[in-house]
Amino acid sequence: MAEETRITIDEFVRVLTEKLEKHGAGKEEAAEVAGIFGLNAADGVISHSVLRVWRVLSHYDNGLIVAGNKPVLVSSAGAVERYDANKASGVISASICMNRACELADKYGIGMVALRNANHWMRGGYYGWLAADQGKVGICWTNTRANLPSWGSKVSNIGNNPFVMAVPGADGKHFVLDSAMSQFSNGKLEVMRRAGKLLPVDGGYDSDGNLTKVPGDIEKTRRPIPMGFWKGSSMSILLDAAAALLADGDDSATIERKMQENGTDECSLCQIFIAIDPAALGENNFAEIEASIKAGIHDAEPVKEGSPSRYPGERVLKDRAKAMREGIMVPSESWEQILNL
Amino acid sequence: MAEETRITIDEFVRVLTEKLEKHGAGKEEAAEVAGIFGLNAADGVISHSVLRVWRVLSHYDNGLIVAGNKPVLVSSAGAVERYDANKASGVISASICMNRACELADKYGIGMVALRNANHWMRGGYYGWLAADQGKVGICWTNTRANLPSWGSKVSNIGNNPFVMAVPGADGKHFVLDSAMSQFSNGKLEVMRRAGKLLPVDGGYDSDGNLTKVPGDIEKTRRPIPMGFWKGSSMSILLDAAAALLADGDDSATIERKMQENGTDECSLCQIFIAIDPAALGENNFAEIEASIKAGIHDAEPVKEGSPSRYPGERVLKDRAKAMREGIMVPSESWEQILNL
Repeated sequence: MAEETRITIDEFVRVLTEKLEKHGAGKEEAAEVAGIFGLNAADGVISHSVLRVWRVLSHYDNGLIVAGNKPVLVSSAGAVERYDANKASGVISASICMNRACELADKYGIGMVALRNANHWMRGGYYGWLAADQGKVGICWTNTRANLPSWGSKVSNIGNNPFVMAVPGADGKHFVLDSAMSQFSNGKLEVMRRAGKLLPVDGGYDSDGNLTKVPGDIEKTRRPIPMGFWKGSSMSILLDAAAALLADGDDSATIERKMQENGTDECSLCQIFIAIDPAALGENNFAEIEASIKAGIHDAEPVKEGSPSRYPGERVLKDRAKAMREGIMVPSESWEQILNL
Repeated sequence: MAEETRITIDEFVRVLTEKLEKHGAGKEEAAEVAGIFGLNAADGVISHSVLRVWRVLSHYDNGLIVAGNKPVLVSSAGAVERYDANKASGVISASICMNRACELADKYGIGMVALRNANHWMRGGYYGWLAADQGKVGICWTNTRANLPSWGSKVSNIGNNPFVMAVPGADGKHFVLDSAMSQFSNGKLEVMRRAGKLLPVDGGYDSDGNLTKVPGDIEKTRRPIPMGFWKGSSMSILLDAAAALLADGDDSATIERKMQENGTDECSLCQIFIAIDPAALGENNFAEIEASIKAGIHDAEPVKEGSPSRYPGERVLKDRAKAMREGIMVPSESWEQILNL
């Protein structure tokens, strides 16, 4: 078990803002990026916040991110728009695009924004919460480098292409799904390896070609399994094809090839943001529907006594409040590294 | 193994048209419904065509389907519309809604139709092909009765909520995903048990609460697993919540309760149909993207030599052509039953 340090979210955001400014982000951009990273950390997703700080700072250094840049409109028609990310920060460009999809939904009932040449959006769930907080049903996904073998393939040839869905609930208690198409995200493998833990179910293959629960072995072979085996593999392919077609950008295989050729990080991702406004369709009975769904989940006889089933997103608000009060535990080594960046 | 009979698709469609007319469907409706069932059979999905004929005819008999009825517009705003299925045939109402979503996409770039009080749409993939054949990216899903335990629950409290995505490919070679949120359907468990086979991967729990590949053990406990364990469970809940909210209709728990109370089949499902027109966003390079994706899948080193990985939907066109030429094998007992309905 790696040594851990407790840090407050405020401290993390303050330090990160400083470091971002030091690496060239302007004051406003630094505050916005650090704020998103802070919320993602508070929500318990340190894999895509604290542990990625070095990477994002390196992007400001090496030009993958150009401070101050914003996505540029490529084409539009009615309720759909296509943007080029134009080397903007990944979290900023994705936020802009989901907010824009919500604006289109305000006007047309539904809106879609397709983004190409994007940098990593970090935690996809953030954009689901962003839509749900505006009362919208949000659906978004990104393609990724080829980091997952398609079903029947020995080598990584498709992306794990995280898929996000959000449905606004009462009092901010939204339903939010944030799921990579691999059984475990790379972030989760990293966190479990750092914690010295085994995965709860098989997550991929070891170097002998056997299924394994050892996260580090899967990171080495780069042979994680898709969620639901052939099912997640198929869904990954569809998400990639739809994203690349609508954004007119790179598919996972092309992203991977460019990374190998140019020795760069992921910087030509395609992302799709769809927002739907339930209010556009008039009255609805969702308070009752929501109660029925939540009761159906909470009241079912649990596998483990005292551990009721939960809806996706349920723990986030409590975890967030606790993290805001008490801070979060992060690997001491990672925190030291950040302080020295 | 049960005895099988070879029938031609033409013969199946002719017989089904006759039977539908006999059970009250008008001439035009009978032809349309039979045509869809015929195509689903040709595409190899006899579980949701040949094997469901008796059920659909019984719906014409018991009033769950009222011949000639069409979905009725409830509300609309810009690119979104909400319908009540109004006891229309499930395959007809879903076809109408996906076609309408495509029309909205022609006008706005994207369109969504939400349908409530729907009868079973049979094979969801059909509506994906319908959108892709019109050059649209199609996304649709339905909720279902509560036939799957959510992650952490011992009893079925969520639906398997099939999710469909389609991306139009060149020469009609579309990418089409059609995936229920359970790892295996009940039909598949039955088929594998009868054949004395083990499932290729764990499909649910045995009576000791252990994961198992023995289909009969899962049928006994009625504890199938969601695809990807917690992931399919979460996605099922989101699909249900979004469908019920946007259609302002019943969630899976309510559908199940009504079925138990009224002793009827599923007849208050919610279905969402989204179509996006890639052409609305101007030129794209999809011929090249499509070739890259397909090559990435086909050319990857396979786990089993000679068995390359495939993209979803790849085998459908070949299977369909073969079935149109040579007919399909169906359980003799089921065919005899249809002839006597």
